[in-house]
Order: sequence, then C-alpha cells, then structure tokens
Amino acid sequence: MASSQHDIVASDRPRVVILGAGFAGLNAARKLAKKDVDVFIVDRNNYHLFQPLLYQVATAGLDPSDISMPVRAVLGKYKNTRVVMNEVRAVDRQNKKVILERGELPYDFLIVATGAETKYFGPDSWEKNSTPLKTVEDALELRRKILTSFEMAEQANDPDERSECLTFVIIGAGPTGVEMAGAIREIAAEVMRRDFRTIDPEDTRVVLIDAQPHVLPTYPEELSEKARKEVERRGVEVMVNSPVDDIGENTVTVGDETIRTHTVIWAAGVATGSVMNTLDTELDRMGRARIDANLTLPDDPHVFVVGDAANFTHDLDEALPGLAPVAIQMGKHAAKNILRRVRGDDYEPFKYFDKGQMSTIGRAAAVVDFGKIKAVGFFAWVLWLFVHLMYLVGFKNRVVVLIEWAYSYLAFKRGSRIIIGEPEHDHPEELAFPGVESAHQHSTAQ
Amino acid sequence: MASSQHDIVASDRPRVVILGAGFAGLNAARKLAKKDVDVFIVDRNNYHLFQPLLYQVATAGLDPSDISMPVRAVLGKYKNTRVVMNEVRAVDRQNKKVILERGELPYDFLIVATGAETKYFGPDSWEKNSTPLKTVEDALELRRKILTSFEMAEQANDPDERSECLTFVIIGAGPTGVEMAGAIREIAAEVMRRDFRTIDPEDTRVVLIDAQPHVLPTYPEELSEKARKEVERRGVEVMVNSPVDDIGENTVTVGDETIRTHTVIWAAGVATGSVMNTLDTELDRMGRARIDANLTLPDDPHVFVVGDAANFTHDLDEALPGLAPVAIQMGKHAAKNILRRVRGDDYEPFKYFDKGQMSTIGRAAAVVDFGKIKAVGFFAWVLWLFVHLMYLVGFKNRVVVLIEWAYSYLAFKRGSRIIIGEPEHDHPEELAFPGVESAHQHSTAQ
Repeated sequence: MASSQHDIVASDRPRVVILGAGFAGLNAARKLAKKDVDVFIVDRNNYHLFQPLLYQVATAGLDPSDISMPVRAVLGKYKNTRVVMNEVRAVDRQNKKVILERGELPYDFLIVATGAETKYFGPDSWEKNSTPLKTVEDALELRRKILTSFEMAEQANDPDERSECLTFVIIGAGPTGVEMAGAIREIAAEVMRRDFRTIDPEDTRVVLIDAQPHVLPTYPEELSEKARKEVERRGVEVMVNSPVDDIGENTVTVGDETIRTHTVIWAAGVATGSVMNTLDTELDRMGRARIDANLTLPDDPHVFVVGDAANFTHDLDEALPGLAPVAIQMGKHAAKNILRRVRGDDYEPFKYFDKGQMSTIGRAAAVVDFGKIKAVGFFAWVLWLFVHLMYLVGFKNRVVVLIEWAYSYLAFKRGSRIIIGEPEHDHPEELAFPGVESAHQHSTAQ
Repeated sequence: MASSQHDIVASDRPRVVILGAGFAGLNAARKLAKKDVDVFIVDRNNYHLFQPLLYQVATAGLDPSDISMPVRAVLGKYKNTRVVMNEVRAVDRQNKKVILERGELPYDFLIVATGAETKYFGPDSWEKNSTPLKTVEDALELRRKILTSFEMAEQANDPDERSECLTFVIIGAGPTGVEMAGAIREIAAEVMRRDFRTIDPEDTRVVLIDAQPHVLPTYPEELSEKARKEVERRGVEVMVNSPVDDIGENTVTVGDETIRTHTVIWAAGVATGSVMNTLDTELDRMGRARIDANLTLPDDPHVFVVGDAANFTHDLDEALPGLAPVAIQMGKHAAKNILRRVRGDDYEPFKYFDKGQMSTIGRAAAVVDFGKIKAVGFFAWVLWLFVHLMYLVGFKNRVVVLIEWAYSYLAFKRGSRIIIGEPEHDHPEELAFPGVESAHQHSTAQ
C-alpha cells in the first residue's frame, strides 16, 4: 500500500482531480484507470449512487445497498487512482488546486462532475414542510414518512385525520414525481391491503402536481399524454397547469384548493451546488457552467465540466438534459481529451449520441422514447427493466441482483418495509383506537 | 378490513395486549393467533429485529432489512390480531389499561415483553463519547463511524492521528463485544486491505475491555478461556479485570493507560426501560420484574412479564439469562397460560428447557455450549451458522437468505459498505494528503 501511495504523491505524472463520483465522474475515472496519469476522485460520500432507482428505496422496494456501490469497490484495484472521501469547498483556478473541507489538492487537469442538488423555488417554509428525493438520506426519510403515515392512519380516530394520513402530494411531474406517484399507489393497493385492519388503503389519495401543462415534459407531447392517462388509470390524481401557491404544515395550496396531507414530496427542481460559483466562470439560470465544444471552460483548457453541472449547447437548440447517458458520455469524453493532451494531441469536440430516454410510470408500465421506437406500457417497461438491470449488474453479484429484483420488485420485498430513524411526533394527541374505549365494556371473570 | 376491525373492537372476547414485538412478544402473539382472544401487539418500531445478528449490520456484513421483519408481515394475516406502532408510556393496573403516546388500550390480560435497553454505568459524558449496539439506528451509526474512521485514516497526515483513527475500543466482553471485536479485525484485515492506498489496515488496533476476569462470562470458564485465546489469535487485544475509569472525547482510560481512539463501542450494560417502574411491583437491580412460577406478577394474575424484562429464579441459583431461547419459551408459555385461563383451566408453572448457548468469535469460529457438546472453533461456527440461518428463514425468501448469506457473510458483501447519515466533523482540520503539497512541484506544459 504505502509504496503505491508514495508513487502517486511523488510521481511526476500529470494529476487529474475528479470532483464527484456520479455517472460522469466515475466513468471519467474508469477511462483514466491504468493510464499514465495520477487520478484523485473526490466525493462527500464513499459510494456511487444509482440515482434512477432511488425512488425504489423511498418506496421500500429496494435497500440503499442494492443501488449503491462503494467507490473503492469500483476503483480500489487501480494503483494510479486515489479515492478521497471529503467535501469540496472551492476551486482555486489561479493556483490550480481544489480546497477541501480537510486539506487541499493541486491538479494539472480538473474534471468538475459535482452534479445537481435539490433546489426550492419558494419560501424556506416549503423546504421545512416537504421532503426531496435526491440523496439516500432523502429516500430513507421519505420511506419513513410514507410507512409511518399508514401506521398513523391505522390508529386514527377521526376520519379527517385518517384521510390526511392517507393523502400523498407530489410536486413536480418529471420522471421522479411520476415514478413516486405510481409506486405509492401500488404500495397502498397491493401491499398494505394485506396488512392493515382499520384502514382500507384503497382510500389512499396520491396527487401529482405540476405548473407545466404536461407530465414528463422532456418527452414528445403524445407520449406525455399517454403517460398521464396511464398514471391516472392507476388512480393518481394529476393536476397540470397548477403552480403551487403554498406548502404549509400538513397542507398544500394550489389556487383556491387546499389539500390536507402528512406527506409532501418535492420533485420540482434541481440546481448545481455552491462550488460552481467558485469556478469564476459564466453560469446559466440553473447554475450550470457554459462549456465549450471540448467540455472545458472557455478560458481554461485544464478545467472540464461534465454531467448535470454542465451546460452544453453547441449546435443544439437547448442544453443537453440531466440524464445518466449524457453524464456517462461526457465523463468518458473528458477523460479521453485529457489523455490526448497528455500524448501531445489536441482536444476533440464532444458529440452526444442520443440513446433516447425511458422512465417507469408504475409497476409493469413505462414510457420509452428511442426516436424510432416510442412506446408506453408493458413492452416499454420490459425494456426499462432490462436496461436498468444491465446497469445495476456489477453493483452486486449478478445472481443476487436478479433474485433480489425478481423478489423485491415483482413480489414486493417485505423486509425493506421497516421504519428506521427517529419517529416523528407531529401527529395530534387525540389519535387513539376507533371505538375502543366505548365498545369495550366487559371484563373476563377472574 | 373495516368489518374485521369492528369485530375486534366490538367483540366480547378477552383482550390480550402484548407490549413489545421482540422474541418474547412475537412468539406470544403467534401462539394466540386464530385463538378465541383479541390480540393487540404494541411496539415503537414496525418491525421485529433479529438481535443476534445486529453486529453484522454494524460491521456492514448485512443490511437492516436482512435481519428485520415488519411485524405486520408476520401477524398481518391473523384476523384476531392488531399491530399497533406506538410508544408505551405506562401501565395502569388499577384500571387494566395501557397508556400509550397516542391513546390508551384496555386489557384483560397483559404480556409485558418490553425487553432491555442500553444502560450506562458512569457519567453522562460516557454516553456522549461512545456508541451502543442495541437498535438498528445504533448499528447504522456504528457502521458509519467505523467506515468513516478508515476513510479518515487514509487521509491523515500525522501518524498519531492515523493510528487514532485505526484504533477501536470495545467496552464489555459479552457476546456482542466479542462478536464486534472479531468482525472489525476481519473488515480491516480482509476487506480494507484491497481498497486503501496510504494505510495498511493491518495496523488496525482492536481493544476489548472488561471489568470481569473472563470474556463471555455466561460460559463455563474453560470455554471462556478458549474463546479469549481464539480472539487474541485473531489480533484482538483483550484486557480483562480492567474496569474503565473514563471515556473521554477520543480517549478511553483504564487505570494508568489512556488509549486514543475515534471509535468507542459500549457493549457493557443493559437494563429495562422506564415502563417497568409504572408496573408498581418489585424490580431487581437491572429493573427486571420478579415474577412467580406462572410468569405473572405475584399480586396480579392478569399481568405477565416475559423475556429480558423478567427476573425468573424459581428453583434456580440465578435468574434466567437474557437470551433469545429464554424469551421465546417464556412468550409461548405466557400465551398458553392465558388460553388455559380462558378455557377455565388453571395456570401451569414455567419450566425452561435449556438448549445451551452459542456465539461467534470471528469468521468461521464460534463457541457453543450445549451441555454435553462444548466446542470452540470451526465446528462450533458451522453449528452457529446453521441455527441462525434456520431462525432467519422466513424473514426473507429462503433462496435470497441463503445467497445473501453465502455472498455477504462469506464473500464480504461490498454493497453494504456505504456510509449513510450526516458526516461527522469531529476530525482535526489539519488532516490532508500525505506529502501532497511538498512532493508535487511540476506542472504539465500547456
């Protein structure tokens, strides 16, 4: 160990520092593995997260470890790579170094792949009164809230209190919002029915709200419409063209309608983190850096920005969307350009190969847009399942993945339906057991 | 649903309220299923926890859902049973009802199976400066601390700082302490070695401290001694006859020796919770209720106390130990006694059938004491694995359990080695990268 570490530190090979171990950063690191450069990859977490399935963790279908992979487990075997669990504070381009929470890190080439985080468009109270879904902690918090709401409903005396517990409001009808809406309906309809006594989980109300006129706005309109109908068919109330006016404690207000609920899910907005501001370069409205054709900053060929942190528009009508395939291709291309430069060659411009997009809208139903192939429903879902399974393999032993999936995703894994974390106490004290005191007079003879 | 709930509430069947869904409570509930009584089982969590494997969660070998089972998943199918996720505040024996955090619950028969919780024998600072291992939250917190310590060691400049990160102190050499000590050594030696650059995880120091003269004190002395030798052979420092004088921030003091460490695990003491005091009955030093031969309170034949909450000594030299088999047998017996009484028969005294005890002392090594069969080592471990596998089956699909186990317990499941929760900031700021600044002068020509 010691020696290989020494190699890296003392080496006069060019050093590449990668910020972020998401799809973009991890794929850049892989491309640079075993090459004639030293790689430092920095992330605040020690794992790579398979974001597209995070909603499955939030709805207790999968566990965090099913969709997370320790970065060391992926890159640990490469002697020219160092994994650094640390928080990025700032980038100092003048001195070509990165300032971390603990220590700093000089670079010859920098790949900024810090991605996006949840952004609230509204007063601070909105953040307090709703839960986002961007991190593993978010997902576990959501899982706790959703499952606890059913437990509270089971014990609720007052019918209003009960329906409040059984109402789930999702703000934002992008892929995450649509997936969450479908998944919550399914837990209620197919799982909870078996287990509860006083509530009929069919009473569960799931409301999907968006200010825009269409769900899944990145899809062609006809697909969006089909997706909306499919989601509604599954019992989700879809409110489009409905900007949210307020998120209160246990309420969501849209126009003159106020919905009472215990669970508000914020799936409406993301933006880049504060590190971007230290890059001292032009950012767009979402905080993404405008990059040139080679994926570097216009005035700094040593600094690449890729994935959700980047705004790449060249000869396109709009910036590339924040999708995994985009991030993966950008990460690999940045790495290739660095290797070119190290060899003494010139950078090559990035070309995105559009593989299309897909998202689930419920169990056994998805929407896919591969350009030529457009589909909504079961066939689309089989494609979705296949693609995501292929991605996930390597996260765990292949057999385990397949069985976990067959078992947990199709047959509903029950083990994951455990509520971890501090219980909430935001529930009225009058909660009790329906009619217990009144109906229960007798006592067995002693 | 509604109807079955109504049946329960309006029924004039005797009502049995069970407090706690551990081994004792869950087995009592199972015995009462489908019988001519109404059962309410109350627990602050919505799951039953397989405590014997909690240390595996703390050491990232298994996930919480591998050893937890939603109570509803076990009892949901029984129409005469209601699962109540709620916190028990007090027992009101005069009015034969239980006071819960939300609402109250009258009973005809009460089974108190609230178990034990972590107890600190020392100043409050000890609780602040160490982590117990009794709940899922404890286990995840410990996992985070252990894995983070290795990450911090990887980045430590100062050798003292590094060895502090790599030192793990376990207070209490009972089964939990011994299992933790063995498991941490293994992570370090067999797993971490592959993944780290600047540290040699072999430098990991694991110290197991106990005030008593023997590890695993519930075992015969000769077995304890063999177990200690086996643990030491695996690189654990065992300090017996060593009462802890102080637990400071990053230090543990024993006599005139002060050990610097980032991770202190408290496995020293348990006691019953505050509910026991409301029982208005005689409790022993550990807060356990002294019960009569039928497992009921001496002055109240309607209130049973079982499992870790009970002190059962009849014709024994000492109270039955807090082991799973004891709790399971007590829970079933209490249920049987209630059914006898409901039929009009008399209670029967409890007889414990001693199946012996077993615990692991490291991968592929355990100690078993079945009376006739006494063993330490691999054979004992195979027995241990078999028994625990049989218990766990039913928690998950049998195939999944077997594969997860083969994969995670033998081949080290890497996916679980993810650090969840807020990162700690109790680490010195001077942490940085060994020699980076100094050794790294050049810059690639642009």
